[in-house]
Amino acid sequence: MRKIAESTVRRLSLYLRFLEEFEEQGTETVSSEALAARGGTTSAQVRKDLSFFGSFGKRGLGYSVGELVQKLREILGLGRTYRVAMIGAGKIGSALVQYRGFLQRGFEIVAIFDTDASKVGRAWNGLTVRDIRELEAELRRQPVDIAVIVTPAEAAQAVADRCVALGVKAVLNFAPVQLALPEDVVVKTVNLALELETLSYALTNR
Amino acid sequence: MRKIAESTVRRLSLYLRFLEEFEEQGTETVSSEALAARGGTTSAQVRKDLSFFGSFGKRGLGYSVGELVQKLREILGLGRTYRVAMIGAGKIGSALVQYRGFLQRGFEIVAIFDTDASKVGRAWNGLTVRDIRELEAELRRQPVDIAVIVTPAEAAQAVADRCVALGVKAVLNFAPVQLALPEDVVVKTVNLALELETLSYALTNR
Repeated sequence: MRKIAESTVRRLSLYLRFLEEFEEQGTETVSSEALAARGGTTSAQVRKDLSFFGSFGKRGLGYSVGELVQKLREILGLGRTYRVAMIGAGKIGSALVQYRGFLQRGFEIVAIFDTDASKVGRAWNGLTVRDIRELEAELRRQPVDIAVIVTPAEAAQAVADRCVALGVKAVLNFAPVQLALPEDVVVKTVNLALELETLSYALTNR
Repeated sequence: MRKIAESTVRRLSLYLRFLEEFEEQGTETVSSEALAARGGTTSAQVRKDLSFFGSFGKRGLGYSVGELVQKLREILGLGRTYRVAMIGAGKIGSALVQYRGFLQRGFEIVAIFDTDASKVGRAWNGLTVRDIRELEAELRRQPVDIAVIVTPAEAAQAVADRCVALGVKAVLNFAPVQLALPEDVVVKTVNLALELETLSYALTNR
């Protein structure tokens, strides 16, 4: 398969959200115009995005919702299970372990780590919070695909390096820091502080 | 002031995080190299980013942490208070109203709305959850600068349109949908489902 731009992948993900709602409502076909409205784009863009993956849909009839949902889930790698280690058992970590979206996408949290002695040993969503010093032993025993990093900023890089040394190839980072990791490791950063500051910047400098 | 690229604003925000930690530790000066490491960039880029805003720092001595913190806070518009309406009183909304980062940046939540009769009238962090039907009356009584949208996907566009009609110029959107709003409205979207799917895509198609 050709290398696809991240912007395309993000639109496919938005189309999927829309299609899943249509599926729940029992709608059987959808036009490229309706998908375009959802993805904040044009119907020509939708047709181009979907054409990367072969030909779906019939001119004038639109796309079959069920078929397209299945195909997009396959393209986005949603047919399998991903094993996830959560590093950090603070407030954001707590909100995340309860987030249904993880399991819905096959992201299964299998281990949680923290440095705080008052948290280590506690049960969280059926898992015991482990001491971060056990990271190597634990991830050798049960390797994971993804590390979710919800540590303070100053701890994030070191712990990400340790995960990568253990073979982790994908990192979802909530620490307010830009991680420097090898090129073959995928990193996504969610940084709320940063979003707020780009908003305040825009409001101040308009 | 010149129009600055969003990527620059995002780096300034990362530098500020780092400088604030340095300030807490009592460190008085910092080099462009140290800031570069934090922002995932080069020292030449740091000097270029900061040069947009006049000249700071002395060759060989680095930047004064206190001075740079103050200047960056000013540039990012963090010296004032922003009034925020939260639309949606679900799980994410609940996590957000407790998030200290809002208040630290002068983002003051002044109103919370929901459609769910079981939530309307409840107290949340000292505020009463209001019926979304009161949005117009309430935001006319006390205008807000920012709307934080944490509704289900299908409700987000309509409620964003209503906020914009009431004069809101900035939207922070957590609904998994791309909002279409006038060009003079700043929109930031935080979409966790989408981040997870770009990760699973990358892991599947490596």
